[in-house]
Amino acid sequence: MISHDHLVKIYYKDVDQMGIVYYSRYLEYFEASRTELLASIGLGVTDIEKNGIILPVISSHCEYSRGAKFEQKITVRSKISSIPRSRLHIDYYVFLNNEREILVSGYTEHAFINDKGVAVRAPKMILDCFRQEGLVAIGK
Amino acid sequence: MISHDHLVKIYYKDVDQMGIVYYSRYLEYFEASRTELLASIGLGVTDIEKNGIILPVISSHCEYSRGAKFEQKITVRSKISSIPRSRLHIDYYVFLNNEREILVSGYTEHAFINDKGVAVRAPKMILDCFRQEGLVAIGK
Amino acid sequence: MISHDHLVKIYYKDVDQMGIVYYSRYLEYFEASRTELLASIGLGVTDIEKNGIILPVISSHCEYSRGAKFEQKITVRSKISSIPRSRLHIDYYVFLNNEREILVSGYTEHAFINDKGVAVRAPKMILDCFRQEGLVAIGK
Amino acid sequence: MISHDHLVKIYYKDVDQMGIVYYSRYLEYFEASRTELLASIGLGVTDIEKNGIILPVISSHCEYSRGAKFEQKITVRSKISSIPRSRLHIDYYVFLNNEREILVSGYTEHAFINDKGVAVRAPKMILDCFRQEGLVAIGK
Repeated sequence: MISHDHLVKIYYKDVDQMGIVYYSRYLEYFEASRTELLASIGLGVTDIEKNGIILPVISSHCEYSRGAKFEQKITVRSKISSIPRSRLHIDYYVFLNNEREILVSGYTEHAFINDKGVAVRAPKMILDCFRQEGLVAIGK
Repeated sequence: MISHDHLVKIYYKDVDQMGIVYYSRYLEYFEASRTELLASIGLGVTDIEKNGIILPVISSHCEYSRGAKFEQKITVRSKISSIPRSRLHIDYYVFLNNEREILVSGYTEHAFINDKGVAVRAPKMILDCFRQEGLVAIGK
Repeated sequence: MISHDHLVKIYYKDVDQMGIVYYSRYLEYFEASRTELLASIGLGVTDIEKNGIILPVISSHCEYSRGAKFEQKITVRSKISSIPRSRLHIDYYVFLNNEREILVSGYTEHAFINDKGVAVRAPKMILDCFRQEGLVAIGK
Repeated sequence: MISHDHLVKIYYKDVDQMGIVYYSRYLEYFEASRTELLASIGLGVTDIEKNGIILPVISSHCEYSRGAKFEQKITVRSKISSIPRSRLHIDYYVFLNNEREILVSGYTEHAFINDKGVAVRAPKMILDCFRQEGLVAIGK
């Protein structure tokens, strides 16, 4: 399993008139966390794109238990548990720094699309990076 | 079933460097569509809040089939199929105007939270509006 | 002078914990209004870009007098007063529908950048559209 | 003069189809930088608000010279040069880390609004913090 903790501080831009983070903002935090997760194993998204592969999101899911508030610091943990074949599944867990309670959890799934716009299997450059981290292939 | 079609035009603010709408923006479109859906049956969100009830999102889900592009006009259809007991489930379907292909679909679920911060059953003012539209209660 | 009124309804996504529209959102409304202003005189931004010209913003300015609130409907008026030479200046005025008080005003300035990334004078296709509307060239 | 450097990394959420940061996003970066600037001299925005004062933006200005790109790291420097009387003026300078060229510069101005919604002079708790940093009062 590969895991990365990305720290985010909440600003006015994120918070709605209920005084909690607006629900779509977590998808932005997820993106930042997964970009850093991939970078941490040598997979810069810019590099992947230079190799002619893009990773569009094909599904997203969020469960909101408790809302983060202005000036709070949160950890956005992203996790990849297995080697992708045709799609990459990433899980997310959001909690306040120094606390265990999960505020928000969710996942995203990504396709591998080549420069002809066709969905393909995970390219070797990506699989190699995952294998180096000890991940094994399961599922579809 | 209650249904509402909300029209959205795509601008630069919505579109990422892949040339398609960034994935979190659909949650913003969903919010606009459901706000208009509720208003269309006499449930202004501001009115609901004046009655001491807020409707925070407790889960969201999106399936992204094809990305909308700059200057395209899309329909964001929201649907409520049954009377909520403790949570309100709303489905969404996004398609290009004048086309049938669904670009994105998804749902949100909402709790009813009173002014003490406690989750409650759907208040009478809300149930009455749904009943007037012919909805029946099912599920939890 | 060319003018266009673009209608916007305020949703939760726009409003911060002061209960008013977050200040950067007006720049998004400005973009929607100017895109429709240009379209109304036959200048679709997508068409301009197909001709190898992009119109990046080189300056923006906003004066905030009073904040719009959730579920209010606002008019975002954009105006072009003269034919651009090397830059396009657009003014904006935001007010509640059916009211005269201006909530927010501002402007943006845009360069004309060709497909080599070089700033150029306003292309003929753009000038022709402005001339048809009776605008005359002034200033730099 | 008080100055603070806030680091931001650019993600997909920020970048438009020109491949550069969308122009309203800089106002979000400005907010994060000034929040940290104020916190660095003991003025947490949450604390200020608990004292019954809010600091709404009354004007914003940006000059865009060059656009930041996906996965670039930028510094958002905020500066306060004098003690505010009735309004707080903050300047911003955005540059790539390790480079001197300024990509974007701008300013915001803020009123001091009390809990009755009335604009007031800068409260003592705020002036004291600025004086401790050696700032002197000038201007209106």
